[in-house]
Amino acid sequence: MVFENPVIKQLVEKTRILWALGHAQSLMGWDTETNMPPEGAMERGIAAGEISVLQQKILLSPEIVGLVDKADKIEDLNDYERGVVRVLKRRIRIAKALPPRLIYEFARTSEEAKVVWRQAREKDDFNMFKPYLEKLVKLGREAAEYLGYVEHPYDALLDLHEEGLLTRDVDRIFSVLEPGIRKVLDKIISEELFSKEHELEKIKYDRNSMEKVNIEILKIFGFPLGRRARLDVSTHPFTTGIGVRDVRITTRYEGIDFKRTMYSVIHEFGHALYHLQIDERLIATPLAGGASLGIHESQSRFWENIIGRSMSFTEAIYPVLTKYLDFIKKYSPEDIYYYFNTVRPGFIRVDADEVTYNFHILLRFKLEKLLIAGEIKVEELPELWNNEFERLLGLRPRTYKEGVLQDIHWSMGQVGYFPTYTIGNIVSAQIRHYIMKDIPDFYEKIRNNDYKEIKEYLREKIHKWGSTFAPKDLLKRSFGEEMNPKYFIDYLLEKYIYKKI
Amino acid sequence: MVFENPVIKQLVEKTRILWALGHAQSLMGWDTETNMPPEGAMERGIAAGEISVLQQKILLSPEIVGLVDKADKIEDLNDYERGVVRVLKRRIRIAKALPPRLIYEFARTSEEAKVVWRQAREKDDFNMFKPYLEKLVKLGREAAEYLGYVEHPYDALLDLHEEGLLTRDVDRIFSVLEPGIRKVLDKIISEELFSKEHELEKIKYDRNSMEKVNIEILKIFGFPLGRRARLDVSTHPFTTGIGVRDVRITTRYEGIDFKRTMYSVIHEFGHALYHLQIDERLIATPLAGGASLGIHESQSRFWENIIGRSMSFTEAIYPVLTKYLDFIKKYSPEDIYYYFNTVRPGFIRVDADEVTYNFHILLRFKLEKLLIAGEIKVEELPELWNNEFERLLGLRPRTYKEGVLQDIHWSMGQVGYFPTYTIGNIVSAQIRHYIMKDIPDFYEKIRNNDYKEIKEYLREKIHKWGSTFAPKDLLKRSFGEEMNPKYFIDYLLEKYIYKKI
Repeated sequence: MVFENPVIKQLVEKTRILWALGHAQSLMGWDTETNMPPEGAMERGIAAGEISVLQQKILLSPEIVGLVDKADKIEDLNDYERGVVRVLKRRIRIAKALPPRLIYEFARTSEEAKVVWRQAREKDDFNMFKPYLEKLVKLGREAAEYLGYVEHPYDALLDLHEEGLLTRDVDRIFSVLEPGIRKVLDKIISEELFSKEHELEKIKYDRNSMEKVNIEILKIFGFPLGRRARLDVSTHPFTTGIGVRDVRITTRYEGIDFKRTMYSVIHEFGHALYHLQIDERLIATPLAGGASLGIHESQSRFWENIIGRSMSFTEAIYPVLTKYLDFIKKYSPEDIYYYFNTVRPGFIRVDADEVTYNFHILLRFKLEKLLIAGEIKVEELPELWNNEFERLLGLRPRTYKEGVLQDIHWSMGQVGYFPTYTIGNIVSAQIRHYIMKDIPDFYEKIRNNDYKEIKEYLREKIHKWGSTFAPKDLLKRSFGEEMNPKYFIDYLLEKYIYKKI
Repeated sequence: MVFENPVIKQLVEKTRILWALGHAQSLMGWDTETNMPPEGAMERGIAAGEISVLQQKILLSPEIVGLVDKADKIEDLNDYERGVVRVLKRRIRIAKALPPRLIYEFARTSEEAKVVWRQAREKDDFNMFKPYLEKLVKLGREAAEYLGYVEHPYDALLDLHEEGLLTRDVDRIFSVLEPGIRKVLDKIISEELFSKEHELEKIKYDRNSMEKVNIEILKIFGFPLGRRARLDVSTHPFTTGIGVRDVRITTRYEGIDFKRTMYSVIHEFGHALYHLQIDERLIATPLAGGASLGIHESQSRFWENIIGRSMSFTEAIYPVLTKYLDFIKKYSPEDIYYYFNTVRPGFIRVDADEVTYNFHILLRFKLEKLLIAGEIKVEELPELWNNEFERLLGLRPRTYKEGVLQDIHWSMGQVGYFPTYTIGNIVSAQIRHYIMKDIPDFYEKIRNNDYKEIKEYLREKIHKWGSTFAPKDLLKRSFGEEMNPKYFIDYLLEKYIYKKI
């Protein structure tokens, strides 16, 4: 039994309704992006808003808060039981800290800001979006004060997105990443091997054929399509864990440059596998989720980059590609490998390769930190963005759309979210380091479409625990060390400088 | 303003969360039938069960019960305000009677049973489904005791599905219908005009072409596909009103005998139009539903039979049929009219013609009455079904799929539901009687694909009111008389004996 203590058992029982409402909200979110007729949006909005308020009300009910307080005083709890207390305490702490007025203003401002951001981006008009961003930054700074912090107000917002993450952790990570990435990138650019434009980037594909490629790859990975999983189409690819046994991913088909849809599918598969391999005994409990956004992203990046962009994987799926995509036949696996691994500075974060990607995050991290500290103003953002972008990547955005207006996150009030992407990247490389100790023929297995042991490893080290451990504790427990950016640099060196992968 | 009284306004505000949870439950129900990966059923079941219990808990909260009691004492309420009180009082009465444990077990068992039923039907294995049905019948009998009744335990379950309906009402209805239908059916069979087998019944269609026919018909009716509505595929066709602006219907494509899918679409359109034409001021209130299942079914039957099976409709859609279905060209509209109106005893209720249909309901009504009275056991059902079927329609089912396993209703715990279909049939003929007084060129309008006034009539008489009036009151208010089975027999005589439609 995972839960034996009677207080914890009662707590799990009483919070099952929160899980159920989360299940409904997940489905509603998925449906909004995939199936809902557009005019249904107003009623969906009312329903989602009402249910959110109810979730907070139930979480803060005297019954649940009382049980959590009681459980928190018990000494001899097992890991799962301690996990239940930790997860609920954290949710209660956050819910209690933020006054309803602030939550309401956040929700209201971001609802409008999302719409204005879309128009501003369309019209390339930063001034249109500016007052909304100013309001959201102001609200973010207020939230930081309510939530509390020791060293830096930005800590409070980081913690909202990644439990226990501090500004100084991110500073330390980037102090290793920046020179390391710089070294690799300079070599790549001077060598002109990975950085050259590939003609496959311009080649159009047939959507039905590409769908078959995506499905074949998912089958090779063992994705339980039609049994426990779905693949659908939406404007932006995403994964929804409606349940441990009902996990849905989406992709989009742009009709050109087939690696874009293929890697979105592999990326979302990584998220999906996390949900699918959670211990089934944690179903419908507060632990039926992931450890954090960063750990989740490490799983999607592990499949997308560490596995999906390797030479072994390219060779393994070469027969699938040539079977469904006629235009592939004239390229060798090695040629396709370079197409899969094109590295070239570009303006748009979501299109960035695995080398330059973290520079996009470093830029956002620096600006968010300064904004929340009140050291810069929103009106200075475009200029600062462009200067820093030029310093990091040698290009200067010519429009706001290519620069400060490209991401949806700020319009949704999600300041402090971006660094979780970098955590995902470095943890994926860290897992690679450790998996190769246990599975020395890791790449050979990939070459042979044999993912059994690899998935088993991820299940044991990460997935099965759900939210039992905080992200830092999970890493220490499973790999014996904290988050360490050196493995990511080692990986880049090995791949792009020594060309061993 | 629909709601002016401050107590009612407060009540509508406080019960909005119930509407929101209903929205989520509708979506979950729709998703279970259309998209959910089958192994997701267990978690969906837990979520649906938890949310059902929560809905009851909120409904029975002192705040809401207190407001309803207070509102119930106010004298000068308008129709809408009285409707809010009536709907909530009824729900509270039912909810108070049924213990949460029972509701939870119902929801949970039926979520699983639906999935098992689908497999059992596929495999023609009654024993697979039997334990679930036994559990659901047991729960139904318990529910009847908790709800209370004066004459027959089945009354309690009938009232759950059709406000105020009694076993003896249904007995009375069938005492008029059985001889009337028998007379029409004997004539049809002896005449061999409507009853002869039509070769179109054996003709296979191309699924994509048939989908186009269905969509064209929906367009002629003015169904807002892709804007406020969807058409999907499921095992058993159904309609879900997720909102007034998000209404989804389903059909199935068997690949043969095209009228089967066509009439399922027209039937569901009738249900959908009811949702779509509810007064938008009633959105997210307790009145944002229909008057009852029976009134809902009168709308689907009105479109399916009164409109869809008329000669005028056949002539009007003849060009659509010949455009997409090549095999149609050799048949005249009159020939197709006989194919659309084939009257012949058959095993499957959903495929039954409008003459024999009510015999299928009579059979189910009798068996349900006996099951709930504890006079027969679930294990006797297949045999009793077959015996009674043979008595009524002169045929004996050869498989469970043709007999006792054909309907989804019991797997959903919906005992007492079937009689509402017969009410739908009766009321649809009653509406036909009255609409022809206001729109004398009713059939000419159908002939011209002109549904504006017909939809307007239905909106004014039925749809726009939502759940404002109880079914019996709505009929009296809109047509000046109660439910009357004579119009249905008149309609059958006029169509099949005097051949005037």
